[in-house]
Amino acid sequence: MKVIIAPDSFKGSISAKDICAEVKAGIYSVFPEAEVHAVPLADGGEGTLENMIYATNGTITSVLVKGPMGREVLADYGVLGDAETVVIEMAQASGLPLVKPEERNPYAATSFGTGQLIKHALDAGYRKFLIGLGGSATNDAGTGMLSALGVTFFNEKGEPLPEGGGSLGELSYFDDSHLDPRLQESTIKIASDVVNKLCGREGASAIFGPQKGATPEMVEHLDQSLSHFADIVCKQKGLDIRELEGGGAAGGMGAALMTFIGAEVHSGIEVVMKVIGFEKHIQDADLILTGEGRMDSQTLSGKVIAGVAKMAKKHHVPVVVLCGGLDLDATEFDQLGIVAAFSIVPGPCSLEESMENSPKWITERTHSIMRVIRQCKKIANPVERMVKGGTTQ
Amino acid sequence: MKVIIAPDSFKGSISAKDICAEVKAGIYSVFPEAEVHAVPLADGGEGTLENMIYATNGTITSVLVKGPMGREVLADYGVLGDAETVVIEMAQASGLPLVKPEERNPYAATSFGTGQLIKHALDAGYRKFLIGLGGSATNDAGTGMLSALGVTFFNEKGEPLPEGGGSLGELSYFDDSHLDPRLQESTIKIASDVVNKLCGREGASAIFGPQKGATPEMVEHLDQSLSHFADIVCKQKGLDIRELEGGGAAGGMGAALMTFIGAEVHSGIEVVMKVIGFEKHIQDADLILTGEGRMDSQTLSGKVIAGVAKMAKKHHVPVVVLCGGLDLDATEFDQLGIVAAFSIVPGPCSLEESMENSPKWITERTHSIMRVIRQCKKIANPVERMVKGGTTQ
Repeated sequence: MKVIIAPDSFKGSISAKDICAEVKAGIYSVFPEAEVHAVPLADGGEGTLENMIYATNGTITSVLVKGPMGREVLADYGVLGDAETVVIEMAQASGLPLVKPEERNPYAATSFGTGQLIKHALDAGYRKFLIGLGGSATNDAGTGMLSALGVTFFNEKGEPLPEGGGSLGELSYFDDSHLDPRLQESTIKIASDVVNKLCGREGASAIFGPQKGATPEMVEHLDQSLSHFADIVCKQKGLDIRELEGGGAAGGMGAALMTFIGAEVHSGIEVVMKVIGFEKHIQDADLILTGEGRMDSQTLSGKVIAGVAKMAKKHHVPVVVLCGGLDLDATEFDQLGIVAAFSIVPGPCSLEESMENSPKWITERTHSIMRVIRQCKKIANPVERMVKGGTTQ
Repeated sequence: MKVIIAPDSFKGSISAKDICAEVKAGIYSVFPEAEVHAVPLADGGEGTLENMIYATNGTITSVLVKGPMGREVLADYGVLGDAETVVIEMAQASGLPLVKPEERNPYAATSFGTGQLIKHALDAGYRKFLIGLGGSATNDAGTGMLSALGVTFFNEKGEPLPEGGGSLGELSYFDDSHLDPRLQESTIKIASDVVNKLCGREGASAIFGPQKGATPEMVEHLDQSLSHFADIVCKQKGLDIRELEGGGAAGGMGAALMTFIGAEVHSGIEVVMKVIGFEKHIQDADLILTGEGRMDSQTLSGKVIAGVAKMAKKHHVPVVVLCGGLDLDATEFDQLGIVAAFSIVPGPCSLEESMENSPKWITERTHSIMRVIRQCKKIANPVERMVKGGTTQ
């Protein structure tokens, strides 16, 4: 029996790689002879870098950059096993986990560090980029990142704007004539499943602002600022960036990358699967175990599990899902094309308990599912059935 | 495929019969052609009466009796389909659910009503009794029940004692010469898995007193009172009821039934399984789905699941368990002889949420388990595999 373990991380609780280890333990405890492959996944957000480097045997470079709140942070970027593709995870340089909850402030948070990572890789000679946009602390329309790469933003008085989305309302014009010319020779793919646009009720500020610390008043101000930014860009570049699907990803970073740097948006999980050769892994597998922290209606569209299920369907491999919390019904299982999904929790518990106990509970639940499968295999095997009758043990 | 649904109730949340209906829906949604039998079970506690009457097509009689706190309550007893065996569930007449949480008082609570049920059945001509002891509100050593059947308890001054365990410390002697003589002609089986003795740290008061409303001080006083009661019984009848295994069941009711009425204790689940012909049901089944509210170390000894698993093992039928909360590991699954156990909850939630949503969640979890089994069956079926490859749908 060949089993592929291909989960997303359970965000805030356990990494995809660690989930793989726990699931593996659960499988081996029931099928010690099974051939088990761990393929930790990500959808462009948290873990994308780590998993791609792990899967392709790539390398990691650590760079001191300006963090989202201005303090220096040590951020990683990776070079895939092909030795030419750079993977940048925005959260490494400009991520919410780098900001203490009490200092969260999307007015001030800057994406400058992400621009520094790109610059560092350009200096090192790389021209192929994959950029994951998940988990940012910023709402600055990527202006911080652009500043690090040579663009300057001015107010009415011709003074450079302070960084952060809170000042964008004062933007009068920008000068992008000094944008790093090496970007012209580069191909840049964004790995992101965010379809939100830059502004409005489903825009960057309204949807993602609150988790970055924006109060309702701040959301309104930030939305107006991004809208003003779009006006200026339209005036100078003749492009209505308000209309870009995914422009609202990472506080508007999506719009900046597409408009100023010619980046293309690709489905996060599909980019990741392609890079790590996921299709090859699963072709002759008997079972895929995948998982994510919370399985709900969002899971249906373009997250890890949907991507895995789609690929699995193509090769007729059944998929079983483990998750922290489950909010999908049978119709939705069919829609996704999965066999079934189980929460890892063993009963009523708090979110905190479930996060703390994830490792142990993942092993236990895997074990139970594998025992059911072993039981079915016994029944399906007439010789064994004749001898043992088909009970456990 | 023949599936037997044989759960205990999830105490305080959903009856065994209602669980059966939900599990059945879950099975049919995946295997519409399955042969499904619902056999709701109980271990002598809550639901014993209902399930036995349901399984044997028996009859119910309702009687007005004195409830545990003195108010009249309408209590049921049953006559099995054999038309000669009476089933009495102590909780019907003297149960904790009949007492409001704020009026719980094991000093005053009386088992008198249970005695009235027995008397009513004797009057109706019955001489075969099965008595389930679960869920009592009382800690009166069964003296209330004995009073209803003709025994009188006196203090030093020769005055009858007030009912309830709180007064037993003042017991000076009892007169059982007027105990209903028809009990001599009767056979009385207790269905109970409680092995606790009457007194001491593992006795009736210490272990079951707190859930009946006893403070630590009350527990101590009640324990001393039961001990004094044992002294008087020893003096008058020459029997040390302290030593009786199960004497501590239902606040000492076990000791009273054994000593004064010649009752014998039997494993609750085994009595129930025998009465409803459980063994015959499962002989050619492919799967048993059982369940209980909380699956923990207590499950290993003599509760519904242990009984079902034991019988299933004899006939080589695999057992899968659904529960509210799960606190057993793989070694214990093997010890019980079950394939696996799953909590019904879909993720972190409160106990209240899990109780409220039990019906829906039981169906959902059954559905998922059945989908895994269906998937395995497809893989096991080479023709279907060749045609469809083995994915869902």
